[in-house]
Amino acid sequence: MTLILNAQEVESLCDMSTLIDTVERGLREEAQGRAVVPPRLNLPTASGFFRVMPAVMNDSGLMGYKVFHGSMRGGVRYLIAVYAQEGERLLALMDAHYLTAARTGATTGVATKVLATPGAKTVAVIGSGLEARTNLQAVCAVRAVECVTVFSPNPEHRARFAARMSAELGVEVRAVESPAHCVRGADIVVVATNSFGRPDPIAYRGAWMEPGVLVDAIGSTSPFLREIDADTFQRAESIVVDSKVQVEEESGDVKAALSADKYDRAKVVELKDVLAGKAQGRTSAQQMVLFKSVGTAVQDVMAGFAVYEAAVQQGRGLDIGEFLDLKTF
Amino acid sequence: MTLILNAQEVESLCDMSTLIDTVERGLREEAQGRAVVPPRLNLPTASGFFRVMPAVMNDSGLMGYKVFHGSMRGGVRYLIAVYAQEGERLLALMDAHYLTAARTGATTGVATKVLATPGAKTVAVIGSGLEARTNLQAVCAVRAVECVTVFSPNPEHRARFAARMSAELGVEVRAVESPAHCVRGADIVVVATNSFGRPDPIAYRGAWMEPGVLVDAIGSTSPFLREIDADTFQRAESIVVDSKVQVEEESGDVKAALSADKYDRAKVVELKDVLAGKAQGRTSAQQMVLFKSVGTAVQDVMAGFAVYEAAVQQGRGLDIGEFLDLKTF
Repeated sequence: MTLILNAQEVESLCDMSTLIDTVERGLREEAQGRAVVPPRLNLPTASGFFRVMPAVMNDSGLMGYKVFHGSMRGGVRYLIAVYAQEGERLLALMDAHYLTAARTGATTGVATKVLATPGAKTVAVIGSGLEARTNLQAVCAVRAVECVTVFSPNPEHRARFAARMSAELGVEVRAVESPAHCVRGADIVVVATNSFGRPDPIAYRGAWMEPGVLVDAIGSTSPFLREIDADTFQRAESIVVDSKVQVEEESGDVKAALSADKYDRAKVVELKDVLAGKAQGRTSAQQMVLFKSVGTAVQDVMAGFAVYEAAVQQGRGLDIGEFLDLKTF
Repeated sequence: MTLILNAQEVESLCDMSTLIDTVERGLREEAQGRAVVPPRLNLPTASGFFRVMPAVMNDSGLMGYKVFHGSMRGGVRYLIAVYAQEGERLLALMDAHYLTAARTGATTGVATKVLATPGAKTVAVIGSGLEARTNLQAVCAVRAVECVTVFSPNPEHRARFAARMSAELGVEVRAVESPAHCVRGADIVVVATNSFGRPDPIAYRGAWMEPGVLVDAIGSTSPFLREIDADTFQRAESIVVDSKVQVEEESGDVKAALSADKYDRAKVVELKDVLAGKAQGRTSAQQMVLFKSVGTAVQDVMAGFAVYEAAVQQGRGLDIGEFLDLKTF
């Protein structure tokens, strides 16, 4: 059986707590050397890119890939395929527009669980799009959040976000008029913006960091996308990333901090190693910590598997039977 | 619209002449530097492999990939995805078990068209499986073949192949009892075997080469698969391959010839460059020429596109609508 899951189905099958648990399992597996994750293939097309990200999970018995392609101007499409190693079965092919945002949130959830101060209860969100939503959902899944502020340059967007997320999360979400005001006093800051085409892309400044804060920054996933300034990297006492290699290759924020000589590799560790106890994350309640992610194939394949399991349980999706022939020798 | 095409549908949509033309178009495009083809990703799994082969075709306006996975013991499954760059549309997802054999044949067809002596009319086939069939179909599509001999160690297999292909091609196909007898006097020799698990994997020997012959060898696509001996590479006066890099990495036959110091890189050229007039293939009627292929993503994506076009024309396949959401910025 192979399931085809479209965007609406995938969104309705995403349960953030399950995604967080599943992504965490994948990261722990990767830390134990049981995942095979080659560098992403990023192929130029006439007007954009075609990116292929496979991963093999040898403890979970899974494998799969995400392919996403398009351009900032024309738009992007995402596909995730998940396979079971046993029987070499293709389990599902699914749209991964929403799921990419959800797994980014889930990864932030895993990071926040281990990196935020235990009693963190106030959250600031900069950004009001899909990723801002999924990342806030994830943060609220791992901490007893009492109050959220949100800033977005568009007043209507931030008001809509506040209303929607208040209702969804049952927590006060307040729209505020400036980013500095938004982040003041927050235990956790989520920076989830899309600066494409903006004259000043910097949405969060290191000058605003306060003792004990955790900054989760997920928006700068391409060299031309920016959101946090180089000072944020310099002021952070601990920097945790999802992939050391990928953040340097792909994030415009990291590239800018490197150029400004404000990205000290000595204080950068990977989330998976923090989970496995192989590296230190937060070491004191007062420490200022930065989590920076760009997304990895492990996150995609594990999140895709969680969605597949939910689809099977709920009888959702289009079952196209045993789609792929088995060639035997 | 995205089409799902299963194995039976794909097989019924494969027209060898169309596949040959389409693969040739892709190879010419690649020769002009208009294709982006990274090295294949070959990931180990607990019991086998997970191989991902993307290609972007910037003149045809296509992109896509083949993923194949499994093991020689458990079996292998193949999937090809084809996208249009215009609109960033996913055109089709198709089973590629049969299609992989068909595109291998089509590539042999392209090679045979430019490398066999113009008047070639006798063909010897060593092997009686699916690849032997598709490769013979392709050779017969580009030369006026009058007589075919076939050898396979299993008498029943070779008799069945002879009967089937005689009927299909309208040409005399005769099963013979030894490979040396099979190839004697043949203008074109197709070596398309699967030696997995055989004590003596060598099916064709360089000692049998005769002036003017073209040997098309397609079976050794993994380091542990063999079919032609190192002498074949040494005796060949011209060696044409589908990918210089890949044949050295993937073909057990090429690896053995390299080890034996019988693989002279100076006489090896790529098929795409022969097509584009950038390299010489056959230079005389008496020359002994070897074509060796392992398969490339360009062949897969172009063949997949030909099948997609046929499916649209004939109204075949399962249309799952616009499967992938377009995320705009």
